[in-house]
Amino acid sequence: MGKIEKEQYRSELAKRQQMIKDASLPVVVVLEGWGASGKGSVIGSIIKYMDPRFFKVYNMDAKSEEEMRRPFLYRHAARLPKIGQFAIFDGGWMDEATKSYLGKEISAKQYEGRVESIRCFERQLRDNGYLVIKFFLDIDKKTQKERLDALRNNKNTSWRVSKEDLWQNKNYDKFKKVYREYIKATDTPACPWHEIKSTDKDDVERFIASTIISSIDSAINEKWVPEIPENRFEMNESQPLSTITLEDKVLTDEEYRAKLKKLQKELGKLHNKLYEKKIPLIIAYEGWDAAGKGGNIKRIASALDPRGYEVFPIASPTPDEKQRHFLWRFYNRLPKTGHIAIFDRTWYGRVMVERLEGYCSENDWQRAYNEMNEFERDLTDWGAIVIKFWVQIDNATQLERFTLRQNTPEKQWKITDEDWRNREKWDLYEGAINEMIAKTNTKAAPWFILESNDKKYARIKALETVIAEIKKRL
Amino acid sequence: MGKIEKEQYRSELAKRQQMIKDASLPVVVVLEGWGASGKGSVIGSIIKYMDPRFFKVYNMDAKSEEEMRRPFLYRHAARLPKIGQFAIFDGGWMDEATKSYLGKEISAKQYEGRVESIRCFERQLRDNGYLVIKFFLDIDKKTQKERLDALRNNKNTSWRVSKEDLWQNKNYDKFKKVYREYIKATDTPACPWHEIKSTDKDDVERFIASTIISSIDSAINEKWVPEIPENRFEMNESQPLSTITLEDKVLTDEEYRAKLKKLQKELGKLHNKLYEKKIPLIIAYEGWDAAGKGGNIKRIASALDPRGYEVFPIASPTPDEKQRHFLWRFYNRLPKTGHIAIFDRTWYGRVMVERLEGYCSENDWQRAYNEMNEFERDLTDWGAIVIKFWVQIDNATQLERFTLRQNTPEKQWKITDEDWRNREKWDLYEGAINEMIAKTNTKAAPWFILESNDKKYARIKALETVIAEIKKRL
Repeated sequence: MGKIEKEQYRSELAKRQQMIKDASLPVVVVLEGWGASGKGSVIGSIIKYMDPRFFKVYNMDAKSEEEMRRPFLYRHAARLPKIGQFAIFDGGWMDEATKSYLGKEISAKQYEGRVESIRCFERQLRDNGYLVIKFFLDIDKKTQKERLDALRNNKNTSWRVSKEDLWQNKNYDKFKKVYREYIKATDTPACPWHEIKSTDKDDVERFIASTIISSIDSAINEKWVPEIPENRFEMNESQPLSTITLEDKVLTDEEYRAKLKKLQKELGKLHNKLYEKKIPLIIAYEGWDAAGKGGNIKRIASALDPRGYEVFPIASPTPDEKQRHFLWRFYNRLPKTGHIAIFDRTWYGRVMVERLEGYCSENDWQRAYNEMNEFERDLTDWGAIVIKFWVQIDNATQLERFTLRQNTPEKQWKITDEDWRNREKWDLYEGAINEMIAKTNTKAAPWFILESNDKKYARIKALETVIAEIKKRL
Repeated sequence: MGKIEKEQYRSELAKRQQMIKDASLPVVVVLEGWGASGKGSVIGSIIKYMDPRFFKVYNMDAKSEEEMRRPFLYRHAARLPKIGQFAIFDGGWMDEATKSYLGKEISAKQYEGRVESIRCFERQLRDNGYLVIKFFLDIDKKTQKERLDALRNNKNTSWRVSKEDLWQNKNYDKFKKVYREYIKATDTPACPWHEIKSTDKDDVERFIASTIISSIDSAINEKWVPEIPENRFEMNESQPLSTITLEDKVLTDEEYRAKLKKLQKELGKLHNKLYEKKIPLIIAYEGWDAAGKGGNIKRIASALDPRGYEVFPIASPTPDEKQRHFLWRFYNRLPKTGHIAIFDRTWYGRVMVERLEGYCSENDWQRAYNEMNEFERDLTDWGAIVIKFWVQIDNATQLERFTLRQNTPEKQWKITDEDWRNREKWDLYEGAINEMIAKTNTKAAPWFILESNDKKYARIKALETVIAEIKKRL
């Protein structure tokens, strides 16, 4: 490729930066391929004229300790770009999944699960407005060997050859088979593969630059319409909120105090066990305003070792969070292995407040049931225990508590005009909640109802549920 | 301490949570002390009634890899609470500094530097509105030995005894001497020490709870008035902007192209050296609107390996950032060792836009010169190269570029009403900039002027400066 052609491609790419900004399109470029196939140098070349303030390049080689204690896709999801920006991955989830499998870190069955997770992840990205452009840089065994030898024989470059590269070359055929199968399994309309023989540097650059340019142009011009997938998850039965009885779910003060003490002690011990066995626990709280979530969480938290858990109050997303996949901010709040994360409101906001207030499109919230089921499956596949609580009260009890808050000076901060406005939409919310529970009550991450007209009853039931779910796992 | 007294303390503490929220007071509680002095259990106890959504407990024992590649105070600074919230540190910067010194990871001179950094850090916290409550839990050698033995002899607790604990007990007298000196050196009016003999658990809890309560009450009732410190840094000479000549700082296209190519190649090689030697580089850009910062940064960045640098465009702080120390968001954007961070606008916003628009108090920006000098000293002490650029143009050139932007459709996004408004305040800004450069032109982290009426000249000078500063270090 001539110098002029190169200049042209580079400035066309730079123009695309402004175009994706104007179109609010986030773009993820993933370069996968063999060791020594020239991924790094082609990246260095294509970004030459791009504005470095609006793209980031990530080398995904080595996992940090922190990342090793998080689910497989976490470190990729955490690096998703904002709308209008580029993220370029030098090696991505394909590299990671295939290496873990061929290096025998994970079983064939786990590998299969990861490939399925990746398919879902990529579809979710496309459906949520990302353009994902995947490249595979191919070289044959002999070429790889020659390049690795050349790098090793030069003292300035020998450090760039890793043990893994040599191991890959030695097992070239095994890798090739797995690569072929992987590419076949993940070549989807949402995120198709672009493959190139990486023998001539200029060819590769031309191919990659022109593919990025044309992919961006079509993404801007042709609207992607996501499908609403069928449910593919094994579900538990669920019952409409209106059929839940609340009056009979009460405890006396004495019963409450005696049980609380005993259960908190037990939970404290189990927390140590989770820590030892490195099992992460995620507790998600949703419920009516004034249902008693805060006090309920407190009773769980105060039983735990404070160094091993975190409580996340979830409010409306920040500007940075709004500009990314709606699950991004939850990926960034996952616990480490052996730790506990408690969410005071959760990702289910998508199908309640965001749905009812029109903060997302109908297609968005319709899709979200499946997206959240997939998200939770990734968590349980990782080894996490996921417990979802719906804290239930009836309409009259809410009114009583709202009124009490309004009339008690030190509780007034807890009640806002918005709470009253939401209350007017009780029936709409009830419909949405029934649908939410029915569609996300998976066997792997089921909902538990906490009857909370009597807060004491709900607290004890929460403790008992958490204890039972932990014990099931140990 | 009786059960009732305990209940009282705990609920008083819980009340303080609401009080600090109302007063927008962020509170940092640091528990330092001997291994096995009971820090963990007293924390578990005092937080019993606190709302877990509004405090966090951090166990600062083990550093992650990521943290090891960042400056000493980074991981503590990164965990600073928002206004109205508690952060509780189980072991803090005292523990870390003294252990590094006694473990011979750092020299006596480096240790001295760290103690000085800590004094500055704590003063800055208090001056920036934090309440820092430091406790030291003291036990004698014999008691420590007995407790460690008891823990080791129980199979459920033996894992809690680390090699470091045993080493500390063996070298008890050495530790004691260093602890005493450290406490003396850091016992300041801004952040006084609270020491307690940790023999009786109830005593310790009573002491800690009541100290936290009374410290919060006085912080709420008595306004802390920060002093404006004298300059204690070695400075370079600096010249007022009006005396800088711009007309003669020009390059022909041919000169520019030839130099650009050569210098970028050289910088690319030096980047590899920095990486090998694990030297971090921080380049800070400030300058007039339309001075050409973006294009200048691009010429630096495109010479670098994209996997080893990041460019941070700095806009106004997000809500989360606004609720913390003004340097917090920059602590969180520091490069790892061997990496490069380029800031497009910086912490100096404090003494320019924040000063002139009244976003902070006069005391705040007056203090900030010293606070930023201290921040940069921590960076250079850590081993970083810090380069600060002022990109200079004259008033007429700015008008010309603004007008061009206004009249060129594809450049209009670059110009806003705010730019025009700022332009009206040129003289005020010039005064503030002159003061800024004069007061922060330290020998360790000096300012460099980039004369940018001719952007080509400025780009070449930036490349030459970065190259020269790197070479000085290598």
